[in-house]
Amino acid sequence: MSTEIKRTELNDLGEFALIEHLTKNFPLQNKSSAKGIGDDAAVIDNGNFQTVISTDLLVEGIHFDLSYVPLKHLGYKAVVVNLSDIYAMNAIPKQITVSLALSSRFSVEALEELYAGIRQACEFYQVDLVGGDTTSSLTGLLISVTAVGQGEADKLVYRNGAKPGDILCMTGDLGGAYLGLQVLEREKQIYLEHPGVQPELKGHDYIIGKQLKPEVRYDAIEQFAKAELVPTAMIDISDGLASEVLHICKASGVGAFVEEGHVIIKQEVFQTALDFRLDPITCALSGGEDYELLFTIDIKDLEKVRFMNDIAIIGEITDAKDGATLHTKGGKIHQLTAQGWKHF
Amino acid sequence: MSTEIKRTELNDLGEFALIEHLTKNFPLQNKSSAKGIGDDAAVIDNGNFQTVISTDLLVEGIHFDLSYVPLKHLGYKAVVVNLSDIYAMNAIPKQITVSLALSSRFSVEALEELYAGIRQACEFYQVDLVGGDTTSSLTGLLISVTAVGQGEADKLVYRNGAKPGDILCMTGDLGGAYLGLQVLEREKQIYLEHPGVQPELKGHDYIIGKQLKPEVRYDAIEQFAKAELVPTAMIDISDGLASEVLHICKASGVGAFVEEGHVIIKQEVFQTALDFRLDPITCALSGGEDYELLFTIDIKDLEKVRFMNDIAIIGEITDAKDGATLHTKGGKIHQLTAQGWKHF
Repeated sequence: MSTEIKRTELNDLGEFALIEHLTKNFPLQNKSSAKGIGDDAAVIDNGNFQTVISTDLLVEGIHFDLSYVPLKHLGYKAVVVNLSDIYAMNAIPKQITVSLALSSRFSVEALEELYAGIRQACEFYQVDLVGGDTTSSLTGLLISVTAVGQGEADKLVYRNGAKPGDILCMTGDLGGAYLGLQVLEREKQIYLEHPGVQPELKGHDYIIGKQLKPEVRYDAIEQFAKAELVPTAMIDISDGLASEVLHICKASGVGAFVEEGHVIIKQEVFQTALDFRLDPITCALSGGEDYELLFTIDIKDLEKVRFMNDIAIIGEITDAKDGATLHTKGGKIHQLTAQGWKHF
Repeated sequence: MSTEIKRTELNDLGEFALIEHLTKNFPLQNKSSAKGIGDDAAVIDNGNFQTVISTDLLVEGIHFDLSYVPLKHLGYKAVVVNLSDIYAMNAIPKQITVSLALSSRFSVEALEELYAGIRQACEFYQVDLVGGDTTSSLTGLLISVTAVGQGEADKLVYRNGAKPGDILCMTGDLGGAYLGLQVLEREKQIYLEHPGVQPELKGHDYIIGKQLKPEVRYDAIEQFAKAELVPTAMIDISDGLASEVLHICKASGVGAFVEEGHVIIKQEVFQTALDFRLDPITCALSGGEDYELLFTIDIKDLEKVRFMNDIAIIGEITDAKDGATLHTKGGKIHQLTAQGWKHF
């Protein structure tokens, strides 16, 4: 009798299913563990305030390419993408830890650049760097950031609170970060083939900024507090709008529709998409890395958001049986599908 | 005029100096950031309880060698080394996050093994896995663990509270993890040269266990609570006794002496050191990875520790001008020097 060892490739599962599969047998044991895996951040109950914790791993060659990402921008972005997860809980980030694994190819001066970006993010978003770990790697650079935030128990917003009839809203605009990446990748290819040619980035300031130095939506959280609005569900848009709508639908047990014509796509993004022969709405739905917020509100709060700065109403929550759909400008209905990240 | 770009190699600074150098310009902004960089863990003030946070990065090829470290043990160890940092603050770990970067060489079954070890550690130490991130890497496996604990403000123990006259104590015994590693490395070399030869690990159960599946000293923290003892300073022994004594001396602005004859080294450790032509006390001072606790107590608390289980009195805190020294069995006095880790 042969004992065959089963081998399942990581790609067979995909990222979300993999995490679910690996972490399903971890029941929470501590009373203070108010929320575990499955939202933008974990929540720890401290009696009065809740502590919110989120963590991200950025790997050279997978998440960033140092041939066009300045280290200072990388440090900045590594911090703010974590802060985005804390804001997406309707909480305020307060502390971060930063761990690095890096090869000897990096000099102290290179690390100073990276930390200059980390410091700039800490200053702008008023968070404290309180810890970390630094070690070597055999190849490249890896950054692990953990953000810790604070929120009030009855104001934290999870993914699972949306109900039929709720209004679906987004901050800012979508597709820019993805198209910024396309421009940077194109110019890198041209440079590799014709080293004398200067990169042509003119006219792409906005989308390159969205890709290299994104800002995250603390201002939306501030507007909510001012208006005494607590969204019913919220998530940050890191993997594209479609993926995030599906996350809310799954967690809340609801359906949703998105009106294509209401999704905010800037003119520069729209034009660049066409230049690359891409469909602009596809860039918004599947592009990723925009770090805007997607949230739902009770219909009674509609007047509160209607005049908020940089917030758009893009759809509605429906019954689960209706699924998650896109109502196109042409009057058609498409099922939303998640691309997510396919790393492996 | 040429603009010369300065390049300082990471090795020119060393790990501790590098962290200090990079993080010196990060003043704490939030009232809740009770303790930032420079102790076993950061401390966040939540009004009633304090949240204690520690994070570690483990890199394949640097911190572990999968040719002799089973993935289940690796998962277990990755968790407990972080818990050790929380205990070293006299706090109780409650939650962890685990982030992984891994190449496609790993199968889902391999990850299941890793998570089985993580789960075992969570169960034994009663902590909850509440988050993480999973991504791909171009080479090998990298594990980033962050542990979150809870403590009472007036009972947390930092590195900086030792004062002249305090008694220096340690838990357990030292040198075992380092010698366990030597045995595993030796057997790996023999295997590589003579693939037919079975590894000879007999008689080394204890030290191999210390290396592959260390346990950390929650029991010491429990004994402290029971005896109503709050150490004046504490640190976990991850880089060897010498390095940790020096950390306490530097943070507290004191000197210390360690009595060689009082440092606990098990017979198996002692004999294995001699077999490898190593000085046993050097293995204890510089070996690392023992994850015991080093702590200091006020002399008035001496009777409390004298009969505690598995705790030894190994020296005394002195004035800073006396430096940190080892009093050898032969009556000589040596300056303690830190090896720490030289990764780069």
